[in-house]
Amino acid sequence: MAEKRPFDILNNALNSNVLVKLKGDVEVRGVLASFDVHMNLVIENGEEIKNGEIKRKLGTVLLRGDTVVFVSPATIT
Amino acid sequence: MAEKRPFDILNNALNSNVLVKLKGDVEVRGVLASFDVHMNLVIENGEEIKNGEIKRKLGTVLLRGDTVVFVSPATIT
Amino acid sequence: MAEKRPFDILNNALNSNVLVKLKGDVEVRGVLASFDVHMNLVIENGEEIKNGEIKRKLGTVLLRGDTVVFVSPATIT
Amino acid sequence: MAEKRPFDILNNALNSNVLVKLKGDVEVRGVLASFDVHMNLVIENGEEIKNGEIKRKLGTVLLRGDTVVFVSPATIT
Amino acid sequence: MAEKRPFDILNNALNSNVLVKLKGDVEVRGVLASFDVHMNLVIENGEEIKNGEIKRKLGTVLLRGDTVVFVSPATIT
Amino acid sequence: MAEKRPFDILNNALNSNVLVKLKGDVEVRGVLASFDVHMNLVIENGEEIKNGEIKRKLGTVLLRGDTVVFVSPATIT
Amino acid sequence: MAEKRPFDILNNALNSNVLVKLKGDVEVRGVLASFDVHMNLVIENGEEIKNGEIKRKLGTVLLRGDTVVFVSPATIT
Repeated sequence: MAEKRPFDILNNALNSNVLVKLKGDVEVRGVLASFDVHMNLVIENGEEIKNGEIKRKLGTVLLRGDTVVFVSPATIT
Repeated sequence: MAEKRPFDILNNALNSNVLVKLKGDVEVRGVLASFDVHMNLVIENGEEIKNGEIKRKLGTVLLRGDTVVFVSPATIT
Repeated sequence: MAEKRPFDILNNALNSNVLVKLKGDVEVRGVLASFDVHMNLVIENGEEIKNGEIKRKLGTVLLRGDTVVFVSPATIT
Repeated sequence: MAEKRPFDILNNALNSNVLVKLKGDVEVRGVLASFDVHMNLVIENGEEIKNGEIKRKLGTVLLRGDTVVFVSPATIT
Repeated sequence: MAEKRPFDILNNALNSNVLVKLKGDVEVRGVLASFDVHMNLVIENGEEIKNGEIKRKLGTVLLRGDTVVFVSPATIT
Repeated sequence: MAEKRPFDILNNALNSNVLVKLKGDVEVRGVLASFDVHMNLVIENGEEIKNGEIKRKLGTVLLRGDTVVFVSPATIT
Repeated sequence: MAEKRPFDILNNALNSNVLVKLKGDVEVRGVLASFDVHMNLVIENGEEIKNGEIKRKLGTVLLRGDTVVFVSPATIT
């Protein structure tokens, strides 16, 4: 069995829904379109979430890696 | 198909409207004029937004990359 | 006896339950699936904990290393 | 046409008025006298602004780059 | 006499009790089991302390170096 | 005319009075005795200022560069 | 006359009393026993000070450099 690495789950989550928690209690939900080694993420059909409610629709959005707290794919197959 | 990278959306957004969220609950809206690998951004016709309202017009403004939370282009074609 | 290094406890904790405290008073509990040298962690069956209570189930989640405060394995054998 | 880079607007703003927003809700207004690659800035005839009001006159002041949020030249020609 | 270096006190404190203050007013007390050049620390029989009171027992815990404020060995011989 | 660089004003301010604003609303006033490329500064006859009032006399004090917000020389000749 | 450098004052303060201000309004007072280029400091007979009062005696304590705001030797000869 190949060794697993953290970024594998980003690779597996491409084109799927993810929930991203950012520093400062902001969350963005949408489809992961791309990422790089700095954990910069592009989310499509993104929605900004605050206190569990949709604050606004962002469409495509580039999230800066160093503001990311966690990334949770909706499902991994 | 070429692999997509996060900074592609900045390249595609040049000369278009973007919304930039900065650390400390400040947002700047305007036309993306240039960027570099540190995610330093130049916005033209920039407006500073606080709590959803225009706080003041900034004209041209250089945003320091490490204060960026996210960049959302109005539309990507 | 071989010299012990801090990351050994992550290696020993693979596939076991861990408690991870993140900056900003967030905690995640679940099974450690992978990690890298930046202390990026993948947790499976993850639960987000706030003030000692389960806030929500996250399933698989990638925690960014530089937001980690501590990682505590439930048991080390 | 040459490609534009973010620091070009600092170069163009030399000897002109700029507004600099720093982390922690401090702003400094004055004439940009010099800058370097870290975005360290020297402002002459600088005024410290807090909540839109002049807090005090600083004269010449060296602003450390990593505290800069944005730099906005009054006009670019 | 050999020159003293800060990390010497970590080396001397191995297998002894230490008090570690972390950013965000959290403290951990326990036996120092290992450390590395980033000041990542493994504490065994660790207790999380908040406002001077034991908040919970952590057992073995890996503390991320960049959240450390100070490390104080109970005694150095 | 030689190109000006931000650190020139530190060089010109040696042995003169400077006002240093640090992160966290602390200010130190005194005579600049030395500095290095990290903007670490040694101030002599230093006074700690809080809310515009002298909080205490520090004498000689080494200020760590990455806590500096700005340095303002009293006069530059 | 040899050029002065900021770290000289740490070297001169070895085995003497210093006051160290850390981020987050914590101060430690005691005898400087060692330091390194990261400004990691070992203080002996250290006392933790909060709001001007001794909060507790720490004995020997290793202070992590990147939490240091300033270091002030009691006297330099």
